[in-house]
Amino acid sequence: MLEQIKVVLVEPSHPGNIGGAARAMKTMGLGRLALVNPKRYPDPQADWRAAGALDVLDAAEVVTDVAQAIEHCHWVVGTSTRSRKIPWPVLNAREMAAEIRALPADTQVAILFGREDNGLNNDELQRCNRHLQIPAAAAYSSLNLAMAVQVVCYEIHQAALEDREVSSWDRKLATSGEVEAMLDAWQQVLIDTDFLQPDNPGKTMTRLRRLFNRVQMDETEVQILRGVIKHLTP
Amino acid sequence: MLEQIKVVLVEPSHPGNIGGAARAMKTMGLGRLALVNPKRYPDPQADWRAAGALDVLDAAEVVTDVAQAIEHCHWVVGTSTRSRKIPWPVLNAREMAAEIRALPADTQVAILFGREDNGLNNDELQRCNRHLQIPAAAAYSSLNLAMAVQVVCYEIHQAALEDREVSSWDRKLATSGEVEAMLDAWQQVLIDTDFLQPDNPGKTMTRLRRLFNRVQMDETEVQILRGVIKHLTP
Repeated sequence: MLEQIKVVLVEPSHPGNIGGAARAMKTMGLGRLALVNPKRYPDPQADWRAAGALDVLDAAEVVTDVAQAIEHCHWVVGTSTRSRKIPWPVLNAREMAAEIRALPADTQVAILFGREDNGLNNDELQRCNRHLQIPAAAAYSSLNLAMAVQVVCYEIHQAALEDREVSSWDRKLATSGEVEAMLDAWQQVLIDTDFLQPDNPGKTMTRLRRLFNRVQMDETEVQILRGVIKHLTP
Repeated sequence: MLEQIKVVLVEPSHPGNIGGAARAMKTMGLGRLALVNPKRYPDPQADWRAAGALDVLDAAEVVTDVAQAIEHCHWVVGTSTRSRKIPWPVLNAREMAAEIRALPADTQVAILFGREDNGLNNDELQRCNRHLQIPAAAAYSSLNLAMAVQVVCYEIHQAALEDREVSSWDRKLATSGEVEAMLDAWQQVLIDTDFLQPDNPGKTMTRLRRLFNRVQMDETEVQILRGVIKHLTP
């Protein structure tokens, strides 16, 4: 379970947080770190804070956008502090760890952590199957980035200590990239047929995105829905 | 419960860890910090890492030995990574939080965190009612000091949360009848357009049924998918 989990830091500003996150991961048995447009990396401060987790830090995958980081992942969680206009399924850290534990074997998981100052943007959050909120004090709920990584990895490690009950499925889960491509195809058809305004696909697409990300589609389902839309295109 | 818990850092070397611990505490609703012989305090680095928890940092009690810090406490836990020659009752972080929650009202609690390099000494550990071990990876179990404070405070906060927050949704969930009616409409269109064989809609419909029942659709989603299929019907 732990090998299939990737921690994705989106545009982290402080190298200390990158190093701290790497150390937090390694103490909890996680090793796959991805960095989306880090402001400063590599950096001596990251190395210092990583301490005995330099191997995790040095092996970090560096990419330029979130889509790239999660393309081959099947189950994507995004940390979110605010509630959204169109709410997504929200889990706390413990519930998230329990869901990850219950996923079919070989499911690739990504956990997205947003920018220190303003988190993940709407586009990034809408690519997620679930949103994650770490329960915190109402008076001051702003966990440091690396601290949030520590809490989340701790819960995953706790869940992994329990016996793994693997659920089985008859098809491979669809990756984030496959679902996005299907949504793009739908959007195109719905615009071409005047169901949606091209300049404002707006809430309808957001609702479809939420629906299809919430359910965690498998590959066959994606193929069927692509087939349906293609078939019905005039 | 939270007001009666004091976090005690014993001879911390790095001011960043003191600030980080203060922030970790405040995000989890704790406010009482004691420092035993801090190497550098106050310090700008501590202030910077404390971020919005400067009040906790500034109010820290500074003392010269552990006995002083815990003198008026009723229940004392000491973090410990090694097992001792004379074993003490050991709890993990979750068990510790549960025990604290079960203590009689007005019990004053202290949680001791040792030096970055070599923890608490035997004399300090022997003043404790319980020892605390945070479960960590066998390959690298060395949590940063402030991270350890974060995990422990997180577990205490979780235990203190009495009423579960119920996640909210912006639409009513669709009834089974509504979902079935949508599936019927889809099936009809897919048969009329020769996507499906009328005498054998078979597995494709089963898969669509599984997909849309799995996700627990809301009313708006049902309406959108009915709208889409109606719109695309030639």
